[in-house]
Amino acid sequence: MIPDALSQGQFDIVYNFLSLVIASQLFTALFLLISLPRILPRYRNAITVAIIVCGIAAYHYFRIFDSFKEAFVTDALGGAGTYTQAAGASFNEGYRYVDWLLTVPLLLVELVAVLALARKVQAQLLFKLVPAAALMIILGYPGEISGDTGTRGLFGLLSTLPFLYILYVLFVQLTKSLDLQPAGVRQTLSNLRWLLLLSWGVYPIAYLLPMLNIEGANAWVGLQIGYSVADILAKAVYALIIFKVARIKSFADDAEFARHESSHDEFAAASRER
Amino acid sequence: MIPDALSQGQFDIVYNFLSLVIASQLFTALFLLISLPRILPRYRNAITVAIIVCGIAAYHYFRIFDSFKEAFVTDALGGAGTYTQAAGASFNEGYRYVDWLLTVPLLLVELVAVLALARKVQAQLLFKLVPAAALMIILGYPGEISGDTGTRGLFGLLSTLPFLYILYVLFVQLTKSLDLQPAGVRQTLSNLRWLLLLSWGVYPIAYLLPMLNIEGANAWVGLQIGYSVADILAKAVYALIIFKVARIKSFADDAEFARHESSHDEFAAASRER
Repeated sequence: MIPDALSQGQFDIVYNFLSLVIASQLFTALFLLISLPRILPRYRNAITVAIIVCGIAAYHYFRIFDSFKEAFVTDALGGAGTYTQAAGASFNEGYRYVDWLLTVPLLLVELVAVLALARKVQAQLLFKLVPAAALMIILGYPGEISGDTGTRGLFGLLSTLPFLYILYVLFVQLTKSLDLQPAGVRQTLSNLRWLLLLSWGVYPIAYLLPMLNIEGANAWVGLQIGYSVADILAKAVYALIIFKVARIKSFADDAEFARHESSHDEFAAASRER
Repeated sequence: MIPDALSQGQFDIVYNFLSLVIASQLFTALFLLISLPRILPRYRNAITVAIIVCGIAAYHYFRIFDSFKEAFVTDALGGAGTYTQAAGASFNEGYRYVDWLLTVPLLLVELVAVLALARKVQAQLLFKLVPAAALMIILGYPGEISGDTGTRGLFGLLSTLPFLYILYVLFVQLTKSLDLQPAGVRQTLSNLRWLLLLSWGVYPIAYLLPMLNIEGANAWVGLQIGYSVADILAKAVYALIIFKVARIKSFADDAEFARHESSHDEFAAASRER
């Protein structure tokens, strides 16, 4: 799957996208860390988990980035601006699975935590979602590392079952809980589920590419870009939307907190008058 | 565009300027982080975004700095104090675009956030400014990496369109909102727009240099200095002015906070009298 050679332009674009993911995850985590006092304590667990997810992703992208840099070298023989695979080094895609094994269940924890449901309902949801998410990642891995199309297909299929179950829980079972949320966040939360579906959908597509015999340097570069964009959407952008939900709910829960915190004129003007 | 060789003096001045940018961004971010409690909560989002922008810039300048150090080596054949391009390494200008893709939209978010406008007005402004800023950067990149003058010119021109639109929004549409700001900050905010125009103006000039056949080591060194100074003005100095605006507005909003926070004589004396 890893191409034997990359042009300067191909090398640079993968390099830049991997670096973009590092910056996005790292500084989303920092933004949320600084902004933690700007939501009510009851929502801080959701945002703390979001910080951890972005931090774990940044850590793994540092590793992926270094692995990529070491895997390709410019070769005097290949001409200026041509990168070939370095002897004694290989690009380790397995990092992504280690990352997902930790972050994917936590992404669902973030979502459930920000809803601030009754303790029992929350426990039931997590009892369904977290094992299903872990199982989805674990079942994908044997297919990913196998060179055999049949094995890849089989584990791809097995991995899809927990994915469908997660979608069922999110889009059918969770809907009742969404109706209990403040009106201002219902639409945002519904959008969040679609962002999750859209960004998670990139991974099975990338998984299938080798089975469709879409190979070569351009396909591989496209795959790296696809994974990078999906990871930014599924973790950093997702976390910022969760933060927005936590802000709106904090304001809805506590009018005094809203007055104190709001950056908007209607509140600022009111406090100038006092 | 990258010169084949640099003298010791040319190498050192680029090295020093890149390091100056790292120090400026990193410690502006740290100053603002420590100073966050010294403004009212409603302005802290603007300053948090400013911290993130300076942090992202520092991260990318670490990468640019390392890429520069790896791209040139002293060569015994070239004589003492002569740097030539290292085999197997290339200076990656693309980092700058990754940096700008994240930071340029956020610089506009900072500006709008510190104004503390009505929620609807703020949303409308951001809906115009943020996509335009991202589009401006994305359209510049294909021209930057192309060796062809025609392609560079075409994408330069396309990228100018969102830039002009941003200027229109800032200098025409925003003017009404500035009139609603406290008298003490109107002039500062107006100056801030000019700083933005002045520092952003460096980038298109640098972009055009290769089209004017201004090449060679001195032109390249000048370009690196130009980018460095522009990045310090557009991010660190800009952030400090935004912080000043947030301080003045915090004092105008809340007299008690002003008395408590101010380090100036008139307040210190007043509080000693009580």
